[in-house]
Amino acid sequence: MTEIVCLNGQFVPAAEAKISIFDRGLTFGDSIYDCCPVVAGRLINWPLNRARIQRSLKEITLCVPDRFWNELDERATELIKLNDLREGYVYLQVTRGVGERVFTYDDNMTPTVILSVCRTNIVKRGHAYRGIAVCSVEDLRWGRRDIKTTQLLYPVMAKMEAKSKQCQEAWLVSAGMVTEGASTNAYIVQRDGTIVTRPISQEILAGCTRDALLSLCKSRRINVDERAFGLEEALTAREAFITSAIHFVTPVTIIDGKKVGDGKIGPLTADLHEAFLQSIGC
Amino acid sequence: MTEIVCLNGQFVPAAEAKISIFDRGLTFGDSIYDCCPVVAGRLINWPLNRARIQRSLKEITLCVPDRFWNELDERATELIKLNDLREGYVYLQVTRGVGERVFTYDDNMTPTVILSVCRTNIVKRGHAYRGIAVCSVEDLRWGRRDIKTTQLLYPVMAKMEAKSKQCQEAWLVSAGMVTEGASTNAYIVQRDGTIVTRPISQEILAGCTRDALLSLCKSRRINVDERAFGLEEALTAREAFITSAIHFVTPVTIIDGKKVGDGKIGPLTADLHEAFLQSIGC
Repeated sequence: MTEIVCLNGQFVPAAEAKISIFDRGLTFGDSIYDCCPVVAGRLINWPLNRARIQRSLKEITLCVPDRFWNELDERATELIKLNDLREGYVYLQVTRGVGERVFTYDDNMTPTVILSVCRTNIVKRGHAYRGIAVCSVEDLRWGRRDIKTTQLLYPVMAKMEAKSKQCQEAWLVSAGMVTEGASTNAYIVQRDGTIVTRPISQEILAGCTRDALLSLCKSRRINVDERAFGLEEALTAREAFITSAIHFVTPVTIIDGKKVGDGKIGPLTADLHEAFLQSIGC
Repeated sequence: MTEIVCLNGQFVPAAEAKISIFDRGLTFGDSIYDCCPVVAGRLINWPLNRARIQRSLKEITLCVPDRFWNELDERATELIKLNDLREGYVYLQVTRGVGERVFTYDDNMTPTVILSVCRTNIVKRGHAYRGIAVCSVEDLRWGRRDIKTTQLLYPVMAKMEAKSKQCQEAWLVSAGMVTEGASTNAYIVQRDGTIVTRPISQEILAGCTRDALLSLCKSRRINVDERAFGLEEALTAREAFITSAIHFVTPVTIIDGKKVGDGKIGPLTADLHEAFLQSIGC
């Protein structure tokens, strides 16, 4: 748990950071969140996260005052300093605020704004060099997975199922096709070196690392085919990997107990991880 | 907002009832809830609510200590007394508790238990005598609507859409068939007097009022056909109504701007509302 957090503009010890039991984030899941990676004390791809936060807020009609954006930049930077965070991520949650437990809300509510930090290895994260095992789980999430809300119980359930099977992630499957990981985007690499990943829609979250990676692929002239793929295709693919704010480009070597390709870390996956690290100055 | 609430066994003023920003109910929607109606200071159909709470907890593997159940009965009763609640409902929320923001959780977490009360008219609720207008909204909720979790953002969005159309409820529609209301169960009455309502499955919540009503119908030899129905069938039905903890049996007279039957409150609906009130001693 973090030492200092920022709750509605106040920097307070984590243990003192409390919200009303009538906060709609708690009673209705009426809130959005985001996680922005921090490496060497710096926010990585912050403009991408900022844009996603803005989009999530808009999609659920959660209005924040204009000053929110300047304050967000300042507070995130200050929080990193106060906690002397070198590596990990900044977590932001914005709820619609405190009010009577009635489904409908008024326009004049004051949002609750929470910022905290989490310390975790990103650059030297072991899984990027060892690879991970994933298991498939039916995708039963709601139809607006493009909005980063805190309604995360199904990903929690999927991650628990993965853990019980000694897997590090769950790949969610809808109508026979992989949508994404429980908290990551999913990719395979065809035999010809083309990367395949599901296109952006309401069915998946537009990952900031995904966005940054696809830009990187473009600049390196690596083919990317944005289309859905199934588990069978994934198992016959040359390589497979995931991306997320803390995983960057992490190889998937096992799916449902079966090896992907030769079961080793794919060369393109390893190259992309290094290229990604270079792109952020590591 | 209620005056006195019960937070983890402590009876405290509502304004002082606060939980950690690291409560998983807030960060992951990792919590369940229930609302039990109170009429004349008494809990109505409490055993049905208790059984549903137990089921929801089990479905998300949220373990509570054995003493939870005795304490729940005592605290709910005490809270009604302390607030001198005559009519409204008792709200219960149980979260998995406070912990680091990691998707997977350990078995040894201490659940957060919140009880509060809401004052609202139930017996003389105007809508039961005036009828309500509903609008149809695509059902985009997750696939486990049988679990009463606090992941309620989509019902919130649907209710806001209904409000914007001067409707009092939204009927959620999946694959052309009505699943249920955003916070109520949905029914139509055929010309022959048979009540039609969607059968219990993972697609709808097993309403306690629904359960009590179907028992009432059985004892009164009213035919009930548990099957899905669409909007077109609803519009040509003789009557339509909803049930919930606070609506009991409330007529639906307008769907998507069109009259149901002759647009008046149906006789069977009105009878059932009165019979329901009688069954609870009103």
